[in-house]
Amino acid sequence: MPASKKSSLVNSQKKLGIIAGGGELPYRLVNACRENGQPYFIVAFEGQTDPTILPGSDYMITRLGAAGRILNTLKAHGIEDLVIIGSIRRPSLPELRPDMRTFRFFTKLGLRAMGDDSLLSALRRELEDEGFVIRGIQDYVPDLLAMEGDYSRVRPKKGDWQDIDRGIEVSQALGGLDVGQSVIVQEGLVLGVEAAEGTDALISRCGGYKRKGRGGVLVKTCKPQQDQDLDLPTVGIRTLRMCQKAGLNGLVIHANRSILINPQEVAEYANRNKMFVVGVDIDNYKPKS
Amino acid sequence: MPASKKSSLVNSQKKLGIIAGGGELPYRLVNACRENGQPYFIVAFEGQTDPTILPGSDYMITRLGAAGRILNTLKAHGIEDLVIIGSIRRPSLPELRPDMRTFRFFTKLGLRAMGDDSLLSALRRELEDEGFVIRGIQDYVPDLLAMEGDYSRVRPKKGDWQDIDRGIEVSQALGGLDVGQSVIVQEGLVLGVEAAEGTDALISRCGGYKRKGRGGVLVKTCKPQQDQDLDLPTVGIRTLRMCQKAGLNGLVIHANRSILINPQEVAEYANRNKMFVVGVDIDNYKPKS
Repeated sequence: MPASKKSSLVNSQKKLGIIAGGGELPYRLVNACRENGQPYFIVAFEGQTDPTILPGSDYMITRLGAAGRILNTLKAHGIEDLVIIGSIRRPSLPELRPDMRTFRFFTKLGLRAMGDDSLLSALRRELEDEGFVIRGIQDYVPDLLAMEGDYSRVRPKKGDWQDIDRGIEVSQALGGLDVGQSVIVQEGLVLGVEAAEGTDALISRCGGYKRKGRGGVLVKTCKPQQDQDLDLPTVGIRTLRMCQKAGLNGLVIHANRSILINPQEVAEYANRNKMFVVGVDIDNYKPKS
Repeated sequence: MPASKKSSLVNSQKKLGIIAGGGELPYRLVNACRENGQPYFIVAFEGQTDPTILPGSDYMITRLGAAGRILNTLKAHGIEDLVIIGSIRRPSLPELRPDMRTFRFFTKLGLRAMGDDSLLSALRRELEDEGFVIRGIQDYVPDLLAMEGDYSRVRPKKGDWQDIDRGIEVSQALGGLDVGQSVIVQEGLVLGVEAAEGTDALISRCGGYKRKGRGGVLVKTCKPQQDQDLDLPTVGIRTLRMCQKAGLNGLVIHANRSILINPQEVAEYANRNKMFVVGVDIDNYKPKS
Protein backbone atom coordinates (compact mmCIF):
# COMPACT_ATOMS: atom_id res chain seq x y z
CA MET A 1 0.00 0.00 0.00
CA PRO A 2 1.23 3.52 -0.74
CA ALA A 3 2.26 5.71 2.21
CA SER A 4 -0.84 7.63 3.28
CA LYS A 5 -0.83 11.35 2.62
CA LYS A 6 -1.53 13.25 5.83
CA SER A 7 -4.15 15.88 5.14
CA SER A 8 -3.24 19.50 5.83
CA LEU A 9 -6.39 19.72 7.93
CA VAL A 10 -5.07 17.37 10.58
CA ASN A 11 -3.59 19.24 13.53
CA SER A 12 -5.75 22.23 12.80
CA GLN A 13 -6.25 23.96 16.12
CA LYS A 14 -9.87 24.75 15.21
CA LYS A 15 -12.18 22.46 17.16
CA LEU A 16 -13.80 19.83 14.93
CA GLY A 17 -17.45 18.89 15.42
CA ILE A 18 -18.05 15.15 15.06
CA ILE A 19 -21.68 14.21 14.47
CA ALA A 20 -21.37 10.54 15.31
CA GLY A 21 -23.67 7.74 14.21
CA GLY A 22 -23.13 4.06 14.93
CA GLY A 23 -20.43 1.66 13.80
CA GLU A 24 -16.66 1.82 13.88
CA LEU A 25 -15.94 4.94 11.84
CA PRO A 26 -16.66 7.56 14.54
CA TYR A 27 -14.25 5.65 16.76
CA ARG A 28 -11.57 5.79 14.06
CA LEU A 29 -12.04 9.54 13.68
CA VAL A 30 -11.91 10.18 17.43
CA ASN A 31 -8.72 8.12 17.66
CA ALA A 32 -7.09 10.00 14.79
CA CYS A 33 -7.98 13.32 16.44
CA ARG A 34 -6.45 12.17 19.72
CA GLU A 35 -3.27 10.94 18.06
CA ASN A 36 -2.87 14.15 16.08
CA GLY A 37 -3.77 16.53 18.90
CA GLN A 38 -6.78 17.72 16.91
CA PRO A 39 -9.35 19.26 19.30
CA TYR A 40 -12.87 17.90 18.79
CA PHE A 41 -16.38 17.77 20.20
CA ILE A 42 -18.73 14.78 19.76
CA VAL A 43 -22.46 14.95 19.16
CA ALA A 44 -23.67 11.46 20.14
CA PHE A 45 -27.18 10.10 19.60
CA GLU A 46 -29.15 8.02 22.10
CA GLY A 47 -29.36 4.42 20.94
CA GLN A 48 -27.19 5.04 17.86
CA THR A 49 -23.66 6.11 18.83
CA ASP A 50 -21.39 3.59 20.53
CA PRO A 51 -20.95 5.21 24.01
CA THR A 52 -17.44 3.76 24.46
CA ILE A 53 -16.06 6.54 22.25
CA LEU A 54 -17.17 9.19 24.75
CA PRO A 55 -14.98 8.86 27.91
CA GLY A 56 -12.08 11.31 27.71
CA SER A 57 -13.85 13.42 25.06
CA ASP A 58 -15.98 16.56 25.15
CA TYR A 59 -19.44 15.54 24.05
CA MET A 60 -23.19 15.92 24.22
CA ILE A 61 -25.72 13.06 24.08
CA THR A 62 -28.98 13.94 22.43
CA ARG A 63 -31.78 12.60 20.28
CA LEU A 64 -31.85 12.84 16.49
CA GLY A 65 -34.68 15.34 16.39
CA ALA A 66 -32.95 17.94 18.56
CA ALA A 67 -31.49 19.95 15.67
CA GLY A 68 -31.95 23.28 17.47
CA ARG A 69 -30.08 22.17 20.58
CA ILE A 70 -27.32 20.56 18.51
CA LEU A 71 -26.73 23.65 16.37
CA ASN A 72 -26.70 25.93 19.42
CA THR A 73 -24.24 23.71 21.28
CA LEU A 74 -21.89 23.50 18.29
CA LYS A 75 -21.94 27.28 17.92
CA ALA A 76 -21.39 27.77 21.65
CA HIS A 77 -18.23 25.68 21.28
CA GLY A 78 -17.02 27.86 18.41
CA ILE A 79 -17.13 24.96 15.97
CA GLU A 80 -17.03 25.62 12.23
CA ASP A 81 -15.79 22.36 10.71
CA LEU A 82 -18.11 19.36 10.88
CA VAL A 83 -17.69 15.69 10.04
CA ILE A 84 -20.90 13.65 9.94
CA ILE A 85 -19.95 9.99 10.15
CA GLY A 86 -21.37 6.59 11.06
CA SER A 87 -24.60 4.80 10.35
CA ILE A 88 -28.01 6.03 11.50
CA ARG A 89 -30.85 3.59 11.92
CA ARG A 90 -34.06 5.10 10.61
CA PRO A 91 -35.76 6.31 13.82
CA SER A 92 -39.39 5.84 14.68
CA LEU A 93 -41.34 9.09 15.06
CA PRO A 94 -41.49 8.96 18.90
CA GLU A 95 -37.73 8.32 18.94
CA LEU A 96 -37.21 11.33 16.69
CA ARG A 97 -39.39 13.78 18.64
CA PRO A 98 -38.49 16.66 16.33
CA ASP A 99 -37.92 20.09 17.86
CA MET A 100 -39.02 23.19 15.94
CA ARG A 101 -35.69 23.45 14.09
CA THR A 102 -35.86 19.82 12.94
CA PHE A 103 -39.50 20.17 12.08
CA ARG A 104 -38.82 23.25 9.92
CA PHE A 105 -36.05 21.34 8.11
CA PHE A 106 -38.37 18.50 7.17
CA THR A 107 -41.18 20.88 6.29
CA LYS A 108 -38.84 22.74 3.95
CA LEU A 109 -37.86 19.45 2.31
CA GLY A 110 -41.48 18.89 1.49
CA LEU A 111 -43.59 16.01 2.62
CA ARG A 112 -42.45 13.96 -0.32
CA ALA A 113 -39.61 11.71 0.82
CA MET A 114 -36.60 11.45 -1.38
CA GLY A 115 -33.64 9.27 -2.16
CA ASP A 116 -30.79 9.30 0.33
CA ASP A 117 -28.70 11.66 -1.77
CA SER A 118 -31.34 14.37 -1.92
CA LEU A 119 -31.85 14.17 1.84
CA LEU A 120 -28.13 14.41 2.50
CA SER A 121 -27.57 17.28 0.10
CA ALA A 122 -30.48 19.14 1.73
CA LEU A 123 -28.87 18.53 5.14
CA ARG A 124 -25.53 19.78 3.82
CA ARG A 125 -27.06 22.97 2.38
CA GLU A 126 -28.90 23.58 5.65
CA LEU A 127 -25.72 23.27 7.71
CA GLU A 128 -23.73 25.41 5.29
CA ASP A 129 -26.44 28.07 5.51
CA GLU A 130 -25.80 28.06 9.27
CA GLY A 131 -22.13 28.80 8.59
CA PHE A 132 -20.65 25.33 9.05
CA VAL A 133 -18.08 23.74 6.74
CA ILE A 134 -18.70 20.03 6.00
CA ARG A 135 -15.56 17.89 5.87
CA GLY A 136 -15.07 14.23 4.99
CA ILE A 137 -13.61 11.74 7.47
CA GLN A 138 -10.89 11.07 4.87
CA ASP A 139 -9.57 14.60 5.47
CA TYR A 140 -8.69 13.52 9.03
CA VAL A 141 -8.05 9.78 8.55
CA PRO A 142 -6.74 9.62 4.99
CA ASP A 143 -5.69 5.97 5.08
CA LEU A 144 -9.38 4.97 5.22
CA LEU A 145 -9.77 5.78 1.50
CA ALA A 146 -9.64 2.70 -0.72
CA MET A 147 -6.58 2.65 -2.96
CA GLU A 148 -6.33 1.41 -6.53
CA GLY A 149 -5.01 -2.11 -7.05
CA ASP A 150 -4.98 -5.54 -5.44
CA TYR A 151 -5.44 -5.93 -1.71
CA SER A 152 -5.38 -9.72 -1.96
CA ARG A 153 -2.80 -12.11 -3.41
CA VAL A 154 -5.55 -13.68 -5.54
CA ARG A 155 -6.30 -11.59 -8.61
CA PRO A 156 -9.45 -11.64 -10.72
CA LYS A 157 -9.26 -14.02 -13.68
CA LYS A 158 -10.61 -13.36 -17.17
CA GLY A 159 -14.12 -14.63 -16.28
CA ASP A 160 -14.12 -12.50 -13.14
CA TRP A 161 -13.33 -9.39 -15.19
CA GLN A 162 -16.40 -10.08 -17.35
CA ASP A 163 -18.49 -10.01 -14.18
CA ILE A 164 -16.64 -6.95 -12.92
CA ASP A 165 -17.22 -5.05 -16.17
CA ARG A 166 -20.93 -5.82 -16.03
CA GLY A 167 -21.09 -4.98 -12.32
CA ILE A 168 -19.44 -1.60 -12.85
CA GLU A 169 -21.80 -0.79 -15.73
CA VAL A 170 -24.91 -1.68 -13.72
CA SER A 171 -23.83 -0.21 -10.36
CA GLN A 172 -22.89 3.11 -11.94
CA ALA A 173 -26.18 3.26 -13.87
CA LEU A 174 -28.11 2.49 -10.69
CA GLY A 175 -26.08 5.00 -8.77
CA GLY A 176 -26.86 7.63 -11.39
CA LEU A 177 -30.54 7.00 -10.64
CA ASP A 178 -29.85 7.29 -6.87
CA VAL A 179 -31.11 3.74 -6.32
CA GLY A 180 -28.14 1.97 -4.73
CA GLN A 181 -24.43 1.25 -4.81
CA SER A 182 -23.99 -2.50 -5.04
CA VAL A 183 -24.51 -5.23 -7.59
CA ILE A 184 -23.76 -8.96 -7.59
CA VAL A 185 -22.93 -10.57 -10.93
CA GLN A 186 -22.22 -14.23 -11.69
CA GLU A 187 -21.23 -15.40 -15.17
CA GLY A 188 -22.56 -12.23 -16.73
CA LEU A 189 -25.97 -12.53 -15.04
CA VAL A 190 -26.96 -9.83 -12.55
CA LEU A 191 -28.09 -11.83 -9.51
CA GLY A 192 -29.16 -8.85 -7.48
CA VAL A 193 -29.15 -5.13 -7.21
CA GLU A 194 -29.18 -3.06 -4.04
CA ALA A 195 -31.92 -0.57 -3.22
CA ALA A 196 -33.29 0.15 0.28
CA GLU A 197 -32.20 -3.18 1.77
CA GLY A 198 -28.49 -2.37 2.05
CA THR A 199 -25.44 -4.33 0.98
CA ASP A 200 -25.60 -7.03 3.68
CA ALA A 201 -29.15 -8.06 2.80
CA LEU A 202 -28.26 -8.01 -0.89
CA ILE A 203 -25.38 -10.43 -0.34
CA SER A 204 -27.36 -12.88 1.77
CA ARG A 205 -30.26 -13.13 -0.62
CA CYS A 206 -28.02 -13.50 -3.66
CA GLY A 207 -26.30 -16.53 -2.12
CA GLY A 208 -29.59 -18.32 -2.79
CA TYR A 209 -29.85 -17.26 -6.45
CA LYS A 210 -26.28 -18.17 -7.25
CA ARG A 211 -25.81 -21.02 -9.68
CA LYS A 212 -23.67 -23.94 -8.60
CA GLY A 213 -19.92 -23.62 -8.36
CA ARG A 214 -17.67 -20.89 -7.12
CA GLY A 215 -18.09 -17.58 -8.84
CA GLY A 216 -19.64 -14.19 -8.77
CA VAL A 217 -18.48 -10.83 -7.61
CA LEU A 218 -19.80 -7.98 -5.49
CA VAL A 219 -19.18 -4.60 -7.08
CA LYS A 220 -19.79 -1.60 -4.82
CA THR A 221 -19.23 1.84 -6.26
CA CYS A 222 -19.81 5.45 -5.33
CA LYS A 223 -22.79 7.02 -7.08
CA PRO A 224 -21.68 9.64 -9.62
CA GLN A 225 -23.44 12.44 -7.75
CA GLN A 226 -22.78 11.10 -4.23
CA ASP A 227 -21.54 13.55 -1.59
CA GLN A 228 -17.84 12.81 -1.06
CA ASP A 229 -17.86 14.19 2.47
CA LEU A 230 -21.11 12.92 3.89
CA ASP A 231 -21.57 9.46 2.59
CA LEU A 232 -18.80 7.42 0.95
CA PRO A 233 -19.50 3.71 0.28
CA THR A 234 -17.96 1.73 3.12
CA VAL A 235 -16.64 -1.81 3.09
CA GLY A 236 -15.03 -3.86 5.83
CA ILE A 237 -14.31 -7.37 6.98
CA ARG A 238 -17.99 -8.12 7.57
CA THR A 239 -18.81 -7.44 3.92
CA LEU A 240 -16.07 -9.80 2.82
CA ARG A 241 -17.18 -12.50 5.28
CA MET A 242 -20.69 -12.31 3.85
CA CYS A 243 -19.32 -12.57 0.30
CA GLN A 244 -17.41 -15.68 1.34
CA LYS A 245 -20.51 -17.23 2.85
CA ALA A 246 -22.46 -16.47 -0.35
CA GLY A 247 -19.79 -18.27 -2.36
CA LEU A 248 -18.55 -15.21 -4.25
CA ASN A 249 -15.07 -15.03 -5.76
CA GLY A 250 -14.35 -11.53 -4.62
CA LEU A 251 -15.12 -7.91 -4.07
CA VAL A 252 -14.50 -4.76 -6.10
CA ILE A 253 -14.43 -1.36 -4.44
CA HIS A 254 -14.24 2.15 -5.81
CA ALA A 255 -10.66 3.42 -5.45
CA ASN A 256 -10.37 6.94 -3.98
CA ARG A 257 -14.13 7.19 -3.56
CA SER A 258 -14.93 4.59 -0.92
CA ILE A 259 -13.79 3.67 2.56
CA LEU A 260 -12.12 0.36 3.35
CA ILE A 261 -11.98 -0.29 7.09
CA ASN A 262 -8.99 -2.31 8.31
CA PRO A 263 -7.40 -3.14 4.94
CA GLN A 264 -4.79 -5.40 6.57
CA GLU A 265 -7.43 -7.61 8.16
CA VAL A 266 -9.46 -7.64 4.92
CA ALA A 267 -6.39 -8.68 2.89
CA GLU A 268 -5.54 -11.50 5.30
CA TYR A 269 -9.09 -12.82 5.28
CA ALA A 270 -9.18 -12.70 1.46
CA ASN A 271 -5.86 -14.58 1.22
CA ARG A 272 -6.99 -17.25 3.67
CA ASN A 273 -10.20 -17.77 1.67
CA LYS A 274 -8.70 -17.46 -1.82
CA MET A 275 -10.82 -14.44 -2.66
CA PHE A 276 -9.86 -11.25 -4.41
CA VAL A 277 -10.33 -7.70 -3.16
CA VAL A 278 -9.53 -5.02 -5.72
CA GLY A 279 -9.78 -1.25 -5.71
CA VAL A 280 -10.70 -0.05 -9.19
CA ASP A 281 -10.50 3.53 -10.47
CA ILE A 282 -14.09 3.48 -11.70
CA ASP A 283 -14.05 7.08 -12.90
CA ASN A 284 -11.37 6.29 -15.50
CA TYR A 285 -12.37 2.69 -16.15
CA LYS A 286 -12.12 0.86 -19.45
CA PRO A 287 -13.79 -2.60 -19.60
CA LYS A 288 -11.21 -5.37 -19.42
CA SER A 289 -13.19 -8.22 -20.99
CA MET B 1 -62.52 -2.90 -21.21
CA PRO B 2 -62.41 -2.46 -24.99
CA ALA B 3 -63.61 -5.33 -27.19
CA SER B 4 -60.63 -7.54 -27.95
CA LYS B 5 -59.38 -7.52 -31.52
CA LYS B 6 -59.20 -11.03 -32.90
CA SER B 7 -55.87 -11.52 -34.63
CA SER B 8 -55.89 -12.52 -38.29
CA LEU B 9 -53.65 -15.43 -37.36
CA VAL B 10 -56.32 -17.23 -35.42
CA ASN B 11 -58.06 -19.92 -37.47
CA SER B 12 -55.00 -20.36 -39.64
CA GLN B 13 -55.11 -23.94 -40.88
CA LYS B 14 -51.34 -24.26 -40.51
CA LYS B 15 -50.52 -26.36 -37.47
CA LEU B 16 -49.11 -24.26 -34.63
CA GLY B 17 -46.23 -25.61 -32.52
CA ILE B 18 -46.67 -24.81 -28.83
CA ILE B 19 -43.47 -25.11 -26.80
CA ALA B 20 -45.09 -25.19 -23.38
CA GLY B 21 -43.45 -24.33 -20.08
CA GLY B 22 -45.24 -24.24 -16.74
CA GLY B 23 -48.01 -22.00 -15.44
CA GLU B 24 -51.38 -21.05 -16.82
CA LEU B 25 -50.49 -19.45 -20.15
CA PRO B 26 -49.95 -22.65 -22.19
CA TYR B 27 -53.40 -23.74 -21.01
CA ARG B 28 -54.90 -20.44 -22.22
CA LEU B 29 -53.26 -20.86 -25.62
CA VAL B 30 -54.40 -24.47 -25.99
CA ASN B 31 -57.95 -23.44 -25.08
CA ALA B 32 -57.96 -20.59 -27.59
CA CYS B 33 -56.73 -22.98 -30.32
CA ARG B 34 -59.50 -25.44 -29.49
CA GLU B 35 -62.18 -22.76 -29.47
CA ASN B 36 -60.99 -21.34 -32.76
CA GLY B 37 -60.39 -24.63 -34.53
CA GLN B 38 -56.68 -23.81 -34.81
CA PRO B 39 -54.69 -27.07 -35.23
CA TYR B 40 -51.74 -27.32 -32.83
CA PHE B 41 -49.05 -29.62 -31.46
CA ILE B 42 -47.67 -29.36 -27.92
CA VAL B 43 -44.06 -29.87 -26.89
CA ALA B 44 -44.28 -30.54 -23.16
CA PHE B 45 -41.34 -30.80 -20.75
CA GLU B 46 -40.96 -33.35 -17.98
CA GLY B 47 -41.45 -31.72 -14.60
CA GLN B 48 -42.23 -28.31 -16.11
CA THR B 49 -45.41 -28.41 -18.21
CA ASP B 50 -48.74 -28.96 -16.45
CA PRO B 51 -49.79 -32.38 -17.89
CA THR B 52 -53.51 -31.56 -17.60
CA ILE B 53 -53.26 -29.56 -20.85
CA LEU B 54 -52.30 -32.69 -22.82
CA PRO B 55 -55.36 -35.01 -22.99
CA GLY B 56 -57.21 -34.43 -26.24
CA SER B 57 -54.16 -32.76 -27.85
CA ASP B 58 -51.37 -33.98 -30.11
CA TYR B 59 -48.18 -33.74 -28.09
CA MET B 60 -44.75 -35.02 -27.21
CA ILE B 61 -43.25 -35.12 -23.71
CA THR B 62 -39.52 -34.64 -23.60
CA ARG B 63 -36.68 -33.17 -21.57
CA LEU B 64 -35.33 -29.65 -22.02
CA GLY B 65 -32.01 -30.80 -23.45
CA ALA B 66 -33.52 -32.77 -26.33
CA ALA B 67 -33.33 -29.96 -28.92
CA GLY B 68 -32.53 -32.36 -31.77
CA ARG B 69 -35.54 -34.58 -31.11
CA ILE B 70 -37.83 -31.56 -30.63
CA LEU B 71 -36.79 -29.90 -33.91
CA ASN B 72 -37.14 -33.16 -35.85
CA THR B 73 -40.60 -33.85 -34.42
CA LEU B 74 -41.82 -30.32 -35.20
CA LYS B 75 -40.57 -30.64 -38.78
CA ALA B 76 -42.12 -34.10 -39.16
CA HIS B 77 -45.46 -32.50 -38.24
CA GLY B 78 -44.99 -29.82 -40.90
CA ILE B 79 -44.95 -27.07 -38.30
CA GLU B 80 -43.65 -23.61 -39.23
CA ASP B 81 -45.22 -21.27 -36.66
CA LEU B 82 -44.05 -21.59 -33.08
CA VAL B 83 -45.21 -20.06 -29.82
CA ILE B 84 -42.88 -20.52 -26.86
CA ILE B 85 -44.85 -19.82 -23.71
CA GLY B 86 -44.86 -20.53 -19.98
CA SER B 87 -42.21 -20.46 -17.29
CA ILE B 88 -39.18 -22.72 -17.25
CA ARG B 89 -37.46 -23.51 -13.98
CA ARG B 90 -33.69 -23.45 -14.43
CA PRO B 91 -32.86 -27.15 -14.79
CA SER B 92 -29.98 -28.91 -13.09
CA LEU B 93 -27.41 -30.38 -15.48
CA PRO B 94 -28.56 -34.03 -15.06
CA GLU B 95 -32.14 -32.87 -15.68
CA LEU B 96 -31.00 -31.10 -18.84
CA ARG B 97 -28.93 -34.00 -20.31
CA PRO B 98 -28.17 -32.02 -23.47
CA ASP B 99 -28.17 -33.88 -26.77
CA MET B 100 -25.67 -32.87 -29.46
CA ARG B 101 -28.00 -30.26 -30.95
CA THR B 102 -28.56 -28.60 -27.55
CA PHE B 103 -24.88 -28.86 -26.75
CA ARG B 104 -23.92 -27.16 -30.04
CA PHE B 105 -26.41 -24.36 -29.28
CA PHE B 106 -24.84 -23.62 -25.90
CA THR B 107 -21.33 -23.98 -27.29
CA LYS B 108 -22.14 -21.43 -29.98
CA LEU B 109 -23.49 -19.08 -27.32
CA GLY B 110 -20.12 -19.22 -25.65
CA LEU B 111 -19.40 -20.41 -22.17
CA ARG B 112 -20.05 -16.95 -20.85
CA ALA B 113 -23.63 -16.86 -19.59
CA MET B 114 -25.72 -13.89 -20.50
CA GLY B 115 -28.76 -11.94 -19.46
CA ASP B 116 -32.14 -13.46 -20.25
CA ASP B 117 -32.65 -11.31 -23.31
CA SER B 118 -29.43 -12.38 -24.99
CA LEU B 119 -30.25 -16.04 -24.37
CA LEU B 120 -33.75 -15.64 -25.76
CA SER B 121 -32.65 -13.72 -28.82
CA ALA B 122 -30.01 -16.39 -29.50
CA LEU B 123 -32.73 -19.05 -29.21
CA ARG B 124 -34.96 -17.08 -31.57
CA ARG B 125 -32.19 -16.69 -34.18
CA GLU B 126 -31.41 -20.39 -33.93
CA LEU B 127 -35.04 -21.39 -34.51
CA GLU B 128 -35.43 -18.90 -37.35
CA ASP B 129 -32.29 -20.33 -38.97
CA GLU B 130 -34.07 -23.68 -38.88
CA GLY B 131 -36.96 -22.14 -40.84
CA PHE B 132 -39.44 -21.58 -38.00
CA VAL B 133 -41.48 -18.41 -37.51
CA ILE B 134 -41.76 -17.25 -33.89
CA ARG B 135 -45.15 -15.88 -32.88
CA GLY B 136 -46.38 -14.30 -29.66
CA ILE B 137 -49.22 -15.81 -27.62
CA GLN B 138 -51.02 -12.47 -28.07
CA ASP B 139 -51.39 -13.28 -31.79
CA TYR B 140 -53.64 -16.19 -30.80
CA VAL B 141 -55.13 -14.94 -27.51
CA PRO B 142 -55.21 -11.17 -28.04
CA ASP B 143 -57.25 -10.34 -24.95
CA LEU B 144 -54.25 -11.34 -22.80
CA LEU B 145 -52.48 -8.08 -23.69
CA ALA B 146 -52.76 -5.44 -20.99
CA MET B 147 -54.78 -2.42 -22.07
CA GLU B 148 -54.22 1.21 -21.23
CA GLY B 149 -56.24 2.66 -18.38
CA ASP B 150 -57.80 1.74 -15.05
CA TYR B 151 -58.69 -1.85 -14.28
CA SER B 152 -59.76 -0.97 -10.76
CA ARG B 153 -62.30 1.51 -9.42
CA VAL B 154 -59.58 3.02 -7.19
CA ARG B 155 -57.31 5.35 -9.13
CA PRO B 156 -53.80 6.44 -8.21
CA LYS B 157 -53.70 9.67 -6.20
CA LYS B 158 -51.18 12.48 -6.62
CA GLY B 159 -48.66 10.85 -4.26
CA ASP B 160 -49.05 7.53 -6.04
CA TRP B 161 -48.20 9.19 -9.37
CA GLN B 162 -44.94 10.46 -7.88
CA ASP B 163 -44.05 6.86 -7.04
CA ILE B 164 -45.26 5.68 -10.45
CA ASP B 165 -43.13 8.28 -12.27
CA ARG B 166 -40.06 7.21 -10.33
CA GLY B 167 -40.86 3.53 -10.83
CA ILE B 168 -41.21 3.94 -14.57
CA GLU B 169 -37.91 5.84 -14.78
CA VAL B 170 -36.03 3.20 -12.79
CA SER B 171 -37.65 0.11 -14.29
CA GLN B 172 -37.03 1.30 -17.83
CA ALA B 173 -33.40 2.17 -17.04
CA LEU B 174 -32.92 -1.27 -15.47
CA GLY B 175 -34.65 -2.90 -18.36
CA GLY B 176 -32.35 -1.09 -20.77
CA LEU B 177 -29.45 -2.76 -18.95
CA ASP B 178 -31.22 -6.17 -19.18
CA VAL B 179 -31.29 -6.45 -15.39
CA GLY B 180 -34.99 -6.80 -14.56
CA GLN B 181 -38.51 -5.55 -15.09
CA SER B 182 -39.91 -4.57 -11.71
CA VAL B 183 -39.39 -1.87 -9.14
CA ILE B 184 -41.14 -1.03 -5.88
CA VAL B 185 -41.27 2.61 -4.85
CA GLN B 186 -42.70 4.14 -1.68
CA GLU B 187 -42.82 7.90 -1.12
CA GLY B 188 -40.20 8.46 -3.79
CA LEU B 189 -37.77 5.94 -2.30
CA VAL B 190 -36.90 2.86 -4.36
CA LEU B 191 -37.45 0.02 -1.89
CA GLY B 192 -36.27 -2.71 -4.22
CA VAL B 193 -35.31 -3.58 -7.71
CA GLU B 194 -35.71 -6.93 -9.44
CA ALA B 195 -32.81 -8.91 -10.85
CA ALA B 196 -32.50 -12.73 -10.83
CA GLU B 197 -34.93 -13.25 -7.93
CA GLY B 198 -38.12 -12.59 -9.89
CA THR B 199 -41.07 -10.37 -9.10
CA ASP B 200 -42.60 -12.51 -6.33
CA ALA B 201 -39.40 -12.55 -4.27
CA LEU B 202 -39.00 -8.81 -4.85
CA ILE B 203 -42.45 -8.09 -3.47
CA SER B 204 -42.07 -10.26 -0.38
CA ARG B 205 -38.74 -8.78 0.63
CA CYS B 206 -39.89 -5.21 0.05
CA GLY B 207 -42.80 -5.67 2.44
CA GLY B 208 -40.15 -5.68 5.16
CA TYR B 209 -38.42 -2.48 4.01
CA LYS B 210 -41.64 -0.55 3.65
CA ARG B 211 -42.10 2.34 6.01
CA LYS B 212 -45.22 2.45 8.15
CA GLY B 213 -48.57 3.22 6.65
CA ARG B 214 -50.23 2.23 3.44
CA GLY B 215 -48.35 3.20 0.32
CA GLY B 216 -45.98 2.13 -2.36
CA VAL B 217 -46.42 0.82 -5.84
CA LEU B 218 -45.11 -2.05 -7.95
CA VAL B 219 -44.18 -0.93 -11.45
CA LYS B 220 -43.50 -3.74 -13.92
CA THR B 221 -42.55 -2.79 -17.45
CA CYS B 222 -41.29 -4.43 -20.60
CA LYS B 223 -37.58 -3.89 -21.25
CA PRO B 224 -37.02 -1.60 -24.24
CA GLN B 225 -35.23 -4.36 -26.20
CA GLN B 226 -37.36 -7.25 -24.90
CA ASP B 227 -38.62 -9.81 -27.42
CA GLN B 228 -42.35 -9.14 -27.89
CA ASP B 229 -43.06 -12.71 -28.92
CA LEU B 230 -40.93 -14.74 -26.58
CA ASP B 231 -41.13 -13.08 -23.26
CA LEU B 232 -43.68 -10.41 -22.35
CA PRO B 233 -43.90 -9.37 -18.69
CA THR B 234 -46.78 -11.26 -17.10
CA VAL B 235 -48.98 -10.28 -14.19
CA GLY B 236 -51.89 -12.06 -12.60
CA ILE B 237 -53.93 -12.34 -9.44
CA ARG B 238 -51.03 -13.83 -7.51
CA THR B 239 -48.91 -10.74 -8.13
CA LEU B 240 -51.70 -8.52 -6.86
CA ARG B 241 -52.27 -10.70 -3.80
CA MET B 242 -48.61 -10.39 -2.93
CA CYS B 243 -48.75 -6.62 -3.37
CA GLN B 244 -51.71 -6.53 -0.99
CA LYS B 245 -49.85 -8.58 1.59
CA ALA B 246 -46.83 -6.26 1.27
CA GLY B 247 -49.12 -3.29 1.96
CA LEU B 248 -48.73 -1.65 -1.45
CA ASN B 249 -51.32 0.74 -2.85
CA GLY B 250 -51.32 -0.72 -6.32
CA LEU B 251 -49.77 -2.05 -9.43
CA VAL B 252 -48.75 -0.49 -12.73
CA ILE B 253 -48.38 -2.61 -15.86
CA HIS B 254 -47.11 -1.84 -19.33
CA ALA B 255 -50.09 -1.37 -21.65
CA ASN B 256 -49.82 -3.27 -24.96
CA ARG B 257 -46.49 -4.79 -23.96
CA SER B 258 -47.38 -7.08 -21.07
CA ILE B 259 -49.79 -9.87 -20.32
CA LEU B 260 -52.50 -9.59 -17.69
CA ILE B 261 -54.03 -12.96 -16.87
CA ASN B 262 -57.71 -12.93 -15.85
CA PRO B 263 -58.28 -9.15 -15.83
CA GLN B 264 -61.80 -9.56 -14.43
CA GLU B 265 -60.59 -11.46 -11.37
CA VAL B 266 -57.73 -8.97 -10.92
CA ALA B 267 -60.12 -6.02 -11.07
CA GLU B 268 -62.48 -7.57 -8.53
CA TYR B 269 -59.66 -8.35 -6.13
CA ALA B 270 -58.32 -4.79 -6.48
CA ASN B 271 -61.76 -3.31 -5.80
CA ARG B 272 -62.31 -5.48 -2.74
CA ASN B 273 -58.93 -4.44 -1.34
CA LYS B 274 -59.05 -0.77 -2.35
CA MET B 275 -56.00 -1.08 -4.57
CA PHE B 276 -55.36 0.32 -8.02
CA VAL B 277 -54.32 -1.59 -11.13
CA VAL B 278 -53.43 0.61 -14.09
CA GLY B 279 -52.13 -0.08 -17.55
CA VAL B 280 -49.83 2.73 -18.63
CA ASP B 281 -48.57 3.40 -22.15
CA ILE B 282 -44.95 3.53 -21.02
CA ASP B 283 -43.56 4.08 -24.51
CA ASN B 284 -45.35 7.44 -24.82
CA TYR B 285 -45.28 8.36 -21.14
CA LYS B 286 -44.96 11.85 -19.71
CA PRO B 287 -44.39 12.09 -15.92
CA LYS B 288 -47.59 13.12 -14.16
CA SER B 289 -46.12 14.51 -10.92
